Amino acid sequence: MTDLNPVRVGICGLGTVGSGTFNVLKRNAEVIAARAGCQIVVEQIGARRDNANCPTGDVDITRDVFAVAENPNIQILVELIGGTTTARELVLRAINNGKHVVTANKALIAQYGNEIFAAAEKRGVSVAFEAAVAGGIPVIKAIREGLAANRIEWLAGIINGTSNFILTEMREKKRPFADVLKEAQALGYAEADPTFDVEGIDASHKLMILASIAFGIPLQFDKVYTEGITRIAPIDVEYAEQLGYRIKSLGIASRVEKGIELRVHPTLIPEKRLIANVNGVMNAVLVKGDAMGPTLYYGPGAGSEPTASSVIADIVDVARTLNADPKHRVPYLAFQQNSLSDVPVLSIDDVVSSYYLRISAHDKPGVLSRVAQILSDLGISIEALIQKEPAPNQDHVPVIILTNRTQERLIDSAIAQIEALDSIDGAVVRIRVESLAG
Amino acid sequence: MTDLNPVRVGICGLGTVGSGTFNVLKRNAEVIAARAGCQIVVEQIGARRDNANCPTGDVDITRDVFAVAENPNIQILVELIGGTTTARELVLRAINNGKHVVTANKALIAQYGNEIFAAAEKRGVSVAFEAAVAGGIPVIKAIREGLAANRIEWLAGIINGTSNFILTEMREKKRPFADVLKEAQALGYAEADPTFDVEGIDASHKLMILASIAFGIPLQFDKVYTEGITRIAPIDVEYAEQLGYRIKSLGIASRVEKGIELRVHPTLIPEKRLIANVNGVMNAVLVKGDAMGPTLYYGPGAGSEPTASSVIADIVDVARTLNADPKHRVPYLAFQQNSLSDVPVLSIDDVVSSYYLRISAHDKPGVLSRVAQILSDLGISIEALIQKEPAPNQDHVPVIILTNRTQERLIDSAIAQIEALDSIDGAVVRIRVESLAG
Repeated sequence: MTDLNPVRVGICGLGTVGSGTFNVLKRNAEVIAARAGCQIVVEQIGARRDNANCPTGDVDITRDVFAVAENPNIQILVELIGGTTTARELVLRAINNGKHVVTANKALIAQYGNEIFAAAEKRGVSVAFEAAVAGGIPVIKAIREGLAANRIEWLAGIINGTSNFILTEMREKKRPFADVLKEAQALGYAEADPTFDVEGIDASHKLMILASIAFGIPLQFDKVYTEGITRIAPIDVEYAEQLGYRIKSLGIASRVEKGIELRVHPTLIPEKRLIANVNGVMNAVLVKGDAMGPTLYYGPGAGSEPTASSVIADIVDVARTLNADPKHRVPYLAFQQNSLSDVPVLSIDDVVSSYYLRISAHDKPGVLSRVAQILSDLGISIEALIQKEPAPNQDHVPVIILTNRTQERLIDSAIAQIEALDSIDGAVVRIRVESLAG
Repeated sequence: MTDLNPVRVGICGLGTVGSGTFNVLKRNAEVIAARAGCQIVVEQIGARRDNANCPTGDVDITRDVFAVAENPNIQILVELIGGTTTARELVLRAINNGKHVVTANKALIAQYGNEIFAAAEKRGVSVAFEAAVAGGIPVIKAIREGLAANRIEWLAGIINGTSNFILTEMREKKRPFADVLKEAQALGYAEADPTFDVEGIDASHKLMILASIAFGIPLQFDKVYTEGITRIAPIDVEYAEQLGYRIKSLGIASRVEKGIELRVHPTLIPEKRLIANVNGVMNAVLVKGDAMGPTLYYGPGAGSEPTASSVIADIVDVARTLNADPKHRVPYLAFQQNSLSDVPVLSIDDVVSSYYLRISAHDKPGVLSRVAQILSDLGISIEALIQKEPAPNQDHVPVIILTNRTQERLIDSAIAQIEALDSIDGAVVRIRVESLAG
């Protein structure tokens, strides 16, 4: 069954993903070997602290992860320690020692990927990172290999399960953000410090990686526009629904005439789109290619064994190419390193989108016409409008406007002018709208 | 940019998919080469008849497709002629001449795949067939490589766009099957002879291929249970909706204790499932792995350029492994040829499912209790029941029953007993129900 020599891996980090990887490799050893054509042997585990996940038995465990990078028997180092300082050092050490690397570390790849790939290219080794984006969904493989024939036009992803869980609960249970966040923390879906998730930083790491492999551009994480979901109010979720939309935290990468748009922000999506119906902690990525049209990839975006599933798929892929000429391997960022493009990433001011605006207006004649005039003067047309009766004992009415597509700098100018009107109270709520039509 | 020698392909067949492949290879030559690391050159085209799609210019076109299989400059033969007689001969000839093969031909692979793979294994060449299932969706790659860590538990797919279009129209426009079929034919979504699509044969070819790569079993197309959509009435679509379900033509492959279930049939699916919301000609495949949980792959299941997208992805994959030791390549059916399993495919009688039954009963007391008694005596419990008032001037009432999970042979026995009651009119309509819970 297994004609080739066993492939020896070292796993660094035995947290959620590390222990999942060890367990699945053990439990499914037979089917994995039948697919790979060789046994995958865990030669050594590097886990710095005493760890309840540590397996007993005949596995060599060291507290020094760098010992794994120095172990001459190991062909593939699996980096699952997280963070970017030690992880970067560990991965570069392994590469310099001629080892292939598999990692689930999105922050590491998004921030230090260019350096890591340059080192790996020089040494002729593979660096695989399927688990870094959308957990167990093989979306990197799909884009990098499955859509190789296409000029990718855009992609849009629900790539942070915590944010999607919170927005789903806000809609289904009509509960405010802060409430649902507490529940998410209690359920283990959100960290004690939820900033990385709810402010969109985690999603922007993943978006940068997806955009690089889609468009063949170097990683440039600092250029991703990032806006979290903390300011979404239940009332906006409700008005969106009345207009036929759902609010999702999306990562969007789009090739437009002047360059590439890269942005993570709450987004209204028509409810009839499949991706608008991706709920709870699930992830999905919608990709539009010129030949292919739209394809969508859906599944668990995190968790021990789903993420381990992608880590192991990478191990099998690397095992298959161990003896291949490096030039014949799938390139790190889908495109050959020497053919990456310098097309610019655009400023958010240059982005074109439709907008949902919620304005709190005094219940007096003429307010609406002044707002409409401001929009019209800037060439922004109105797609839909809801004006509600004031609640009892309230002298303010909410006015909800959906605009047609316009430039972000124009909508910002309109909002500034609207907020300056006496008949308007407080800040205008603005949420971007995307049709995501295939 | 392109360090390696160009890879020379011969395209046989210039119909919808062949011309799409030629056009996309030409239009996107630059991005494809930047990904593949080499130019993909169309060295020769074999097209038997005078063909309006034939490109002009410097491509060598022959009317004899076998000349392509004999052309010593060609490394990859792309079989897009369809059918199984000439196609089988052509593919075997190419393999014997040491050429790699890429094909979009589901009937060929489902029926002659074992023979073709054995020949290819002997000659050490690749045979790739991503385009054979779900058009442009890279679902074969996802299962074969992306889910390599998993023991696949089951998969369920909407893998025939024509049937899905017809069922979608029947639901949305409340129109009968025959009407919608005519429209589908006018739109080019259905053939003049629609048997292959509406009787589930096309879907069963694709299901057999998916099941082989999911479970590591040889192709055994004759064991797939196949039931078309021709007997679905608009009234069943409506009752299903009242019960919270959609009717879809699904291909289901499931690993159960005794063996493998392989079946294509109309199926009630809870409407909240993502796959229940895949409409029109779109395809989707839902796969449940033990480590991964559920993942779903969605996109266009047919069409010139979507299918070409998969053909070209295969060409790029094969180009990358041209010089690789065959043992290091991804196996044809995901598992190494010498480790395929002989687990039995079960008879439909042994399948366990829930059932939707529509019974036309005389509006007399006691009918319902007799039906309930028959089910109860067989140990079949009732999950939900709708009994309607008779329409004016009608003495029959429809009784709709959703059963809990039971064995097909028991439900068949129940139906025979129910149909034998005097108070029942005509045949009982039976549609299988699947929860598809991840």
